[in-house]
Amino acid sequence: MNDGITDYLSQNKQRFEADLFEWLRMASIGTDSAYDDQTRQAAVWLAEKFKNLGLETDLIETCGQPLVYAQTPPVAGGKTVLVYGHYDVQPPDPVELWTTPPFEPTVRNGNVYARGATDDKGQMITHLFGLEAYLADRGVDGSDGSLPVQVKYLIEGEEESGGAGLDAFLKGEYDKDIGMTVAEKLDADIVVISDCSQYAPGKPAITYGLKGIIYFELFVYGPNRDLHSGAFGGTVNNPANALAQMLTQIKDDQGRIQVPGFYDDVVELTEEERGQFGGLGFSDDDFKTQLGVEDLFGEAGFTTLERRWGRPTFDINGMWSGYQGEGAKTVLPAEAGAKFSFRLVPAQDPNKVHEALEKMLAEICPAGIRFELKNHHGAPGFVLPLGSPFMAAASRAIESGFGTAPVFVRSGGSIPVVNQFKHMLGIDTLLLGWGQDDDNLHSPDEKFSLADFHKGIHSSACLWGEIAKMD
Amino acid sequence: MNDGITDYLSQNKQRFEADLFEWLRMASIGTDSAYDDQTRQAAVWLAEKFKNLGLETDLIETCGQPLVYAQTPPVAGGKTVLVYGHYDVQPPDPVELWTTPPFEPTVRNGNVYARGATDDKGQMITHLFGLEAYLADRGVDGSDGSLPVQVKYLIEGEEESGGAGLDAFLKGEYDKDIGMTVAEKLDADIVVISDCSQYAPGKPAITYGLKGIIYFELFVYGPNRDLHSGAFGGTVNNPANALAQMLTQIKDDQGRIQVPGFYDDVVELTEEERGQFGGLGFSDDDFKTQLGVEDLFGEAGFTTLERRWGRPTFDINGMWSGYQGEGAKTVLPAEAGAKFSFRLVPAQDPNKVHEALEKMLAEICPAGIRFELKNHHGAPGFVLPLGSPFMAAASRAIESGFGTAPVFVRSGGSIPVVNQFKHMLGIDTLLLGWGQDDDNLHSPDEKFSLADFHKGIHSSACLWGEIAKMD
Repeated sequence: MNDGITDYLSQNKQRFEADLFEWLRMASIGTDSAYDDQTRQAAVWLAEKFKNLGLETDLIETCGQPLVYAQTPPVAGGKTVLVYGHYDVQPPDPVELWTTPPFEPTVRNGNVYARGATDDKGQMITHLFGLEAYLADRGVDGSDGSLPVQVKYLIEGEEESGGAGLDAFLKGEYDKDIGMTVAEKLDADIVVISDCSQYAPGKPAITYGLKGIIYFELFVYGPNRDLHSGAFGGTVNNPANALAQMLTQIKDDQGRIQVPGFYDDVVELTEEERGQFGGLGFSDDDFKTQLGVEDLFGEAGFTTLERRWGRPTFDINGMWSGYQGEGAKTVLPAEAGAKFSFRLVPAQDPNKVHEALEKMLAEICPAGIRFELKNHHGAPGFVLPLGSPFMAAASRAIESGFGTAPVFVRSGGSIPVVNQFKHMLGIDTLLLGWGQDDDNLHSPDEKFSLADFHKGIHSSACLWGEIAKMD
Repeated sequence: MNDGITDYLSQNKQRFEADLFEWLRMASIGTDSAYDDQTRQAAVWLAEKFKNLGLETDLIETCGQPLVYAQTPPVAGGKTVLVYGHYDVQPPDPVELWTTPPFEPTVRNGNVYARGATDDKGQMITHLFGLEAYLADRGVDGSDGSLPVQVKYLIEGEEESGGAGLDAFLKGEYDKDIGMTVAEKLDADIVVISDCSQYAPGKPAITYGLKGIIYFELFVYGPNRDLHSGAFGGTVNNPANALAQMLTQIKDDQGRIQVPGFYDDVVELTEEERGQFGGLGFSDDDFKTQLGVEDLFGEAGFTTLERRWGRPTFDINGMWSGYQGEGAKTVLPAEAGAKFSFRLVPAQDPNKVHEALEKMLAEICPAGIRFELKNHHGAPGFVLPLGSPFMAAASRAIESGFGTAPVFVRSGGSIPVVNQFKHMLGIDTLLLGWGQDDDNLHSPDEKFSLADFHKGIHSSACLWGEIAKMD
């Protein structure tokens, strides 16, 4: 740990909080055009902060909300780190369920309560203050070369609403204004994102793997109109029965997915990973109580955390057919449908899964039934090997900031931007979450621990040097 | 054929139609209290007709719409026939889809178009005019004993809305006013109902069997709230997947129902019945075209008509879970549900099916899932043996009226009142349908062929004598 950084952090604690609160007061609800002024204000505010720190800063206009881009000067022979985050926030509805107003940051029990506190303003800005602390400690700004890595920031305003602006930007061709392609502009050795959670209070974590996904909608058609189930039952296949049959065949009663070739490309969990997960003290009994179920269920041969983080899954997300109202209606429905998704692990290819599923459904589709399969979206999974030197560097930085080494976890969810960086720019991501699972992101009373906010800044301030020391 | 009856019928053709049209103008929408006056008017009108014919007639008040009851005098040593029908009609909505207003009977192409034309005013009243013709031919009314059977009429006003009034009436104890129980009052050797269809134009039919039904709603519960399918997928059983699995196990891919003991009590179709069905000229290809399916499906080893009329079935009538809106939502739903029904054949007992199903579901319900099974309603099937002398008598009467012998068919549907007569009063029913499958009952442009109306009257006029000759 560097005493200079520690001193600077403790001297500026109040100001960091004051700055964060000022930013949280701006209702940057990017998805709601009624808040476009405040959304832009939040972007401009952030850009000013970067400028004040001496960074080359751009407010980049897109088809939607602007991107904030900032960078320190290149470091010859040094690494480049790209920090991604977002300044837009979820709508605060239902506002009446908030204890204090969503855009009046309020401190209770060591947490700041406000929309965007943890998702993602509070977490993102730790990397601005972390850089500030690092630069202050050296007593010089990045331009004289004392920062041993180049740091780039790309902070978007549409993460909560689909990220069309970022997507269009990343797809951008050669840009005359900047004299290079977007890919060249953003080129980096690693992406850093703090937009997720620790494993538990006091257990900071690096999320080194994410699942991919492929989400389908299946439409099943039978007779050309709803029929009377008495007059026509037993003569034609019922699309609702057929749908249930088809969906049932996708997964066996041991939780194994039956789509041919589905597991061919699965990267198996290593013994090291299984050991890591096993050491986290996860309790199946507590989990059962939390979810209100008597038994857990999933692919045979794997623990709950292994299935949750490292094994592909199949879940029906929605299903419908026929009469859903009160009482009884004796209808043999003309159609039925379901939404369902597979969570994928590295190196499963969503397109291969789609093809194999389409073929399987054609084979198992019963007589007298037609189906249509719609592919809503797909994204591959992501994993950074446990042995990556970036992981080790981030781990040391977090140990400095939090006073304890992080655990290594994976997530069953997907983060589209991690895939965008991986597949559009070829860059891996370090997911360094400072939040907690009960931070109520997307819900009323969103919060962020101020202690973790400062530990995050501290970790970030240490990260630049650790990455520089990597080689 | 009796020339006297024929003459009377042809002399009174216009009046029969005029009377029917007058009755059809009364909007007896029994289910809608805004039409209570017109519903009562229709009942009173009918009661007057019976009175004018010399029958002992009552307008019996119930908790709902009144019942019209009428009877000829008892015939010592003779049979008693109970004619059932209903004077209430379905609501005419959507009114804008009618070619001519639903309560202004209009003749086009030999059909009368009006709500209630076929269901059931037009069919029911053939048995009033049929009696009138029989009595007129003999030149005497029933009171002098020339009618060789006793005829009783029970015409209700709540057939389209659940029949609570009739049900309460049939359950009635000893009635001081009439000096006997309701069962004694209604006692008869056979019930006659004309509230169904011929097999096809020019092919009058006697429907000698109906399926029973048992209708369930199954609720399947998993975790105590909707979960994120990424964060929680693979850890708990998904109620939508579990529901699909459970429903799939109820029927195999050969269409055989897998509930233990389900087929134990099934009365198999006789060779005679299979021969009858086979002789009807039913075309699977035409049926496929009509329903817009490439293949028919049902229990292996039986023809389409055998499955439709004589084999039990299982159909999902409705199904729901999770997200049904536009686009994708990655939810692992907390619950799922389905409505489904079994159509039963004689002598299956709905209660036994319920017990066996409940037991089976408890056995196949996957780990971590709870279910609730709700029994909406059940009724056994009904069949009158092909060799019944009542069938032979009705067949001769229809041959006189239609000029061709009827075919013998069964139906996949249920008619609750047939079960009420069978199980509350112990009386079998002759279902003599004068309608056609395309009569649009319950839809706009309900119609009834006037030629069939008159043939129905003629058949009814011959029925009394044929039943008297039975022994």
